[in-house]
Formats: sequence, C-alpha cells, structure tokens
Amino acid sequence: MQKIGILGGGQLGRMLLQAAANYPVETYVLENDEQAPAAHLCHHFTKGDIKDYDAVYNFGRRLDALTIEIENVNVDALEALEKEGITVIPRPAVLRTIRNKALQKNYYTTHQIPTSEYILTHNIQELSEQTHFFPAVHKIAEGGYDGRGVQIIETEKDLSKGFDTLSVLEKMVNVEKEIALMIAISQTGEIAIYPPVQMVFDKALNLLDFQLCPAELPERTYWKAEAIALATVKNFNSPGIFAVELFVTPDGDVLVNETAPRVHNSGHHTIEAHYSSQFDMVWRILLNYPLGSTEAIMPSVMLNILGSEGHSGPACYEGLNEMLKIENAFFHLYGKKQTKPGRKMGHVTVISQERADLLYKANKIKHGLSVITKADGRSG
Amino acid sequence: MQKIGILGGGQLGRMLLQAAANYPVETYVLENDEQAPAAHLCHHFTKGDIKDYDAVYNFGRRLDALTIEIENVNVDALEALEKEGITVIPRPAVLRTIRNKALQKNYYTTHQIPTSEYILTHNIQELSEQTHFFPAVHKIAEGGYDGRGVQIIETEKDLSKGFDTLSVLEKMVNVEKEIALMIAISQTGEIAIYPPVQMVFDKALNLLDFQLCPAELPERTYWKAEAIALATVKNFNSPGIFAVELFVTPDGDVLVNETAPRVHNSGHHTIEAHYSSQFDMVWRILLNYPLGSTEAIMPSVMLNILGSEGHSGPACYEGLNEMLKIENAFFHLYGKKQTKPGRKMGHVTVISQERADLLYKANKIKHGLSVITKADGRSG
Repeated sequence: MQKIGILGGGQLGRMLLQAAANYPVETYVLENDEQAPAAHLCHHFTKGDIKDYDAVYNFGRRLDALTIEIENVNVDALEALEKEGITVIPRPAVLRTIRNKALQKNYYTTHQIPTSEYILTHNIQELSEQTHFFPAVHKIAEGGYDGRGVQIIETEKDLSKGFDTLSVLEKMVNVEKEIALMIAISQTGEIAIYPPVQMVFDKALNLLDFQLCPAELPERTYWKAEAIALATVKNFNSPGIFAVELFVTPDGDVLVNETAPRVHNSGHHTIEAHYSSQFDMVWRILLNYPLGSTEAIMPSVMLNILGSEGHSGPACYEGLNEMLKIENAFFHLYGKKQTKPGRKMGHVTVISQERADLLYKANKIKHGLSVITKADGRSG
Repeated sequence: MQKIGILGGGQLGRMLLQAAANYPVETYVLENDEQAPAAHLCHHFTKGDIKDYDAVYNFGRRLDALTIEIENVNVDALEALEKEGITVIPRPAVLRTIRNKALQKNYYTTHQIPTSEYILTHNIQELSEQTHFFPAVHKIAEGGYDGRGVQIIETEKDLSKGFDTLSVLEKMVNVEKEIALMIAISQTGEIAIYPPVQMVFDKALNLLDFQLCPAELPERTYWKAEAIALATVKNFNSPGIFAVELFVTPDGDVLVNETAPRVHNSGHHTIEAHYSSQFDMVWRILLNYPLGSTEAIMPSVMLNILGSEGHSGPACYEGLNEMLKIENAFFHLYGKKQTKPGRKMGHVTVISQERADLLYKANKIKHGLSVITKADGRSG
C-alpha cells in the first residue's frame, strides 16, 4: 500500500481521511494539535508544526506522496522532498504563488486571467496614499484564512483597519454573484470540472452563509467562468484539486477572486451531491487512479455550522435533534470540543430536485441549529 | 462527547467509523488484530479478544455505550456491563439468541414467525438418522460466518460434510427469491424500515453475487415481508439495526432465514443509495438522535469484491484502474493487506435510475475486477 501524508489535521483532513478509507492506502498526518478533527483517523499521526522545515521534511521523506489541507505550510521542505522524488500534490511552486496574495495577484495578471484591479501596500502609510482607490478590500499577503486578514476600506476613516505589512489593496468590484468552480487535475494531466456553485455571504463575518449548486448563470457566463477557471489552474502546471472563486459583475464580466490548490469549503456539497466528491477525487489523484465523475446526483445547498457569537468554550449543538429529522439533510460535525464565535464547527448539505426545498431547508437549519456553550460546561 | 465502543475491527467497523466522523463522538475499538480494517480509524484502539470476558468487560466499563460489528463476542461481559448501566446495543440477550442458530430458530417458532422446518442434531450420528428430512441445509449452531459452517446435505452421500456438534438441520426450501430487510429501532422505540433488497448468490461459495435495491416483488409479498421482518425484530425488545434475511417461495410464502442484529452486508448500498446509511443510522441510535431517512436516493446494485480462487498473499486489485472509470460506481476497498480465496476485500455500489444500467455495470465490475497476488509479492 502507498504511504500518503497530509499536512494539517483540521476538518478538511478529517473528510479526506473519511474518503481514504475507501481505498487501500496507508495514511499519515502531520499536525500540532493531537485533538484536531483529523488526528485520530489516520494510520500514523505525527505531532509537529507544518510550518517548520525539519518537521515537514522528516515527516515527508518516508512517504510516497504528500498533500495539504491548508496552504500555510513549509514550502521549502516540500520543494526539497519533491527534488528527492516524493510526489507532492499540489506542486510546491503552486503553494508559493497562492499562499502569498501579492504573488497570486501577479500570477493572474501574468497569465492574462481577469481579476480585480489592485496595488500592493507595505504599510499603513502606503495605504493612506491610495485614497483614490477606495472603496477597496485590503488583504494581508500572507497568513490570512477564513475571513481573517481581510478588511474593507470604504473611506479614509477605515485606514486604521488596514494591515501594516505587505498587503494587496483590491479595488471594490460591483459583484452581482459570487461563484466557485472546483477543478481536478490528475498526475497524467486528465481534467475534471465540477459544476459551479453560487455563494451567499454573511457580510458581517465574511463567512459563507450558504451555497447553491448548480449556480444560476446565463449560459454565456457559465462558459466564460469555466474557461477562466480552467486557464487559472492549467497555468499552474500541477496536478491537484483547485477551488477557483470568481466574481460575476452586473455586466456579465467574470473575475478571479482567489484560488485554493486544495479541497475547499466550496466543495463540501460534493460528498453527497456528486458521484465523486472533492475528497474522493484527491485520493484518485494521489493514487494515480482515473478521475471520478464530477456530475451532480442532485442539486444541493451547503451551509456551514459556525460557533455562535458570545459563546466560547465546550461546544453544545442546540437544536441538533430537531434538525436531524430533516430527511434530505446530511450533517457533518467536525468533532471540535471547543467552540468560539464564527469557528467552523461543521457543515450541512441538503440535496433535492426542488430549489425551493433546498432554500427552505437551508434557512430552517440556519435558524434552528446553533453552536453554544452550556453554563454548566457540558458538551452535547 | 460520548465515549462509544465497537467490539470488532473488520470492514463493518471501518464503515461505522467513517460514518462516526460526521458526529461529535469519541470512538473506541476492541480488536485482536492491530492491522484490522477499522483499527486506525478510532480515537482509542484496544488490542484484545472480543470473546474474552475480561477484555470485553474492561474495555466497556469506561464507555457510555457499546455496539458490535460481529455476534461472536463475550455476551456475559456485555450483560455485566448492561447491569452496571452502560448502554449496550443490541441488548446482550438478543446476541445470545441470534448467535446460536438453534436458539434463533426456536425464537422464530416461539413468536410464530414463519421459518423453514428444522430439527436439531448434536452429532453426525443424529444427522444420519434424519434422511427423511433431506435435502436439507446443515448449519452449525455457533461460530459460523460468511458461508462457513453451512453445508448442503442433498442425500446420505453428503453425511460426512455435516457437523459433529450442535447444529440446525433445515428442510430445503424451494426459494424463488432471497431478499433482506434492514430495520432500525431507536432507544425510544422509533422504527425505520429500509426498502427490501433482492439477492443473487454464488452457489459455489454461498456468498453474495450481487444485490439489487429495491427488490422486485408483488405488492402483497412486499407487505408480507415487511410485516414478518418487523415482527422478527420487535420481539427482541432491543434498539439497534437489524438485517432480516427472508426466503420468498414460488407460492408467495415468506420465511425468515436468518437475522443479524447489526450492520450487515445487505445494507452496504445504503451508504450512497439512501439518505441515511445503515452506518449513519447506528450512530443516530447510539447517540440518541432521531432516526434518519431510509428512503432511496436512487435504485442500486451492490456487489462484494472477493479474493480470487488460487490467490493467497499480498492483495493486488487487477482491473481496478479500468473499473474506477465507471461514473456511477462507488468503490469501497477495505484495506486488507492479505487476500485469500473468497475473502471479502471490498464492495462496490452502483446507483442508477435504469435497472439495465445497474445490471450491466455490476456484471462489468464482477468480470473486470479481481483480487489476486502478484508473483513478485507487490501489492497494488
């Protein structure tokens, strides 16, 4: 059996390992937190810092192949491992480009991939000189994740919210729709594209509210989005699974927002709603199997289950029993013992032929389930 | 989080643990083989003999609830744990009845549940006195599993194949169809019934060839089967998931063949083809959640992947790459390093609205995939 490692042990790792159990493969995880959602689901757990050169190098050298569940890993070590003949998916060079938002933006412009206008700022002083660019979005170049490291700068009054380090200042785009496309590329260059999903965001938290699949798009926009996403990932020259987030403007323009070279929140619905899930697909790529089918079994809606405001401590899922009665909903709770406001504690996918049913159930779950802490500290 | 243990670490445990990762639960496995399919997927693995009183008792006493993936466990220890207030599902008394085929047969007759005629034999001598009962099926009362411990006794010539210990001699039934029904019962007595499946057996190995869902039955037979299966499991007075195997005769009679008080081979298709899988359902029962929906997302066919004749050693999946191209097929390989003839190495479920497509794909996989050993000992 092939020995395959994952850097990171969060919920993405957890779902990767659930899918791994369908194949003959020996799994390894490198992760600092022994209580992380994926820690117990692998054959071999190594406690260690995925950002540390030695930890990643020593973890990887005994493996046949390596992948990631988060970009923020030691890329130097991955490059050294790749040179020694270990399969690293995605290729380390891709990680280097993507995990730095300044390099990522530069990649889009270099390859003539439409993206929002931007400039780089190195400190608040530089930011303050770009008032002509406002309203804009300020994104820290490295280390942002899940809504952290992103600030909206409407006017000069917001300058203090900006980042005093290398950041990308993106001109605010008039967004009609936010969509995402997942694309899988095998080691032999085979390509499979999932149908686009359409996202509705909770503006306050900059976190996903819920997500519909397939996205409702005019055919012309659909093809444009697919072509742009394809150009985005093909130019990386790397196997892997990629999530391309796109903005659709009122004029029908399509702009790349961000790309993730890994399994992604916008692909969670594929577990139940598609023949081959994004997690299944990764193992097919790593194990050199043919790619799976990206076709939908049914339309779907996905929503994240987030820690409620004002609650930090042992997690309790209020309303869960009632919500579990919904017949066409699939619950995924990540087993995190501690909740905090906005923390991703799980997700739910609803599948149905009826769009109205999807939206009704998503709203029901959104309002019927909350992750809180109990005064007595008991977790549910 | 609740601490829940499984006795046994085979493929059923493996799939139980894949499903467990959707819920907040701390998982424990007791199993003698550290390389077993489920061994690496739990939070806490305990090496020990599930048939040993102390091993089971000491494993269970620190848990909130316990379940099984095989009947052949130490029931005395489970009874002791139950008395101490630990939730054991199914109830130990059910295991005591079911794991002994003589007691199981007696259970059916006591509760007026239709089953084939039978007598008990204690040795070959007694068997030889029952020639008027032939052709018959001789089943060892305890310890049989997966086709082992079952012999067909057509005539006196087959006497030597019989068992020289307590066994059930069942009069051969004229079987038109073999079907199975899975039923879930929650701790509060809620009941959910999966649609019946129809089985086609490989006579030589007494192993499943493939299995269709839903079974093709006249409505009258369908309701009769459901009523009989329901009576069978309700009289156990135990929560749990149950597989009731039934014979349908040419006259439309329905007879209970055997019952398993656990997740079962005949429910594997529910992973992809039904809203709540048999594995998901077990966690809902154990965690006191409402039962899931047993409804089918799509019709399905399931087939086991067995070790090929003449091959014992490191497993290699010949034809797997080609088979993985089938778009609507879901592969489950159990990660067993060693194959041997007839060993269950995995299963495949195909879902489709078209019955012809289901049968075509099942046959394609049956003939296109084989588990062999390579002369050079490499595993694929």
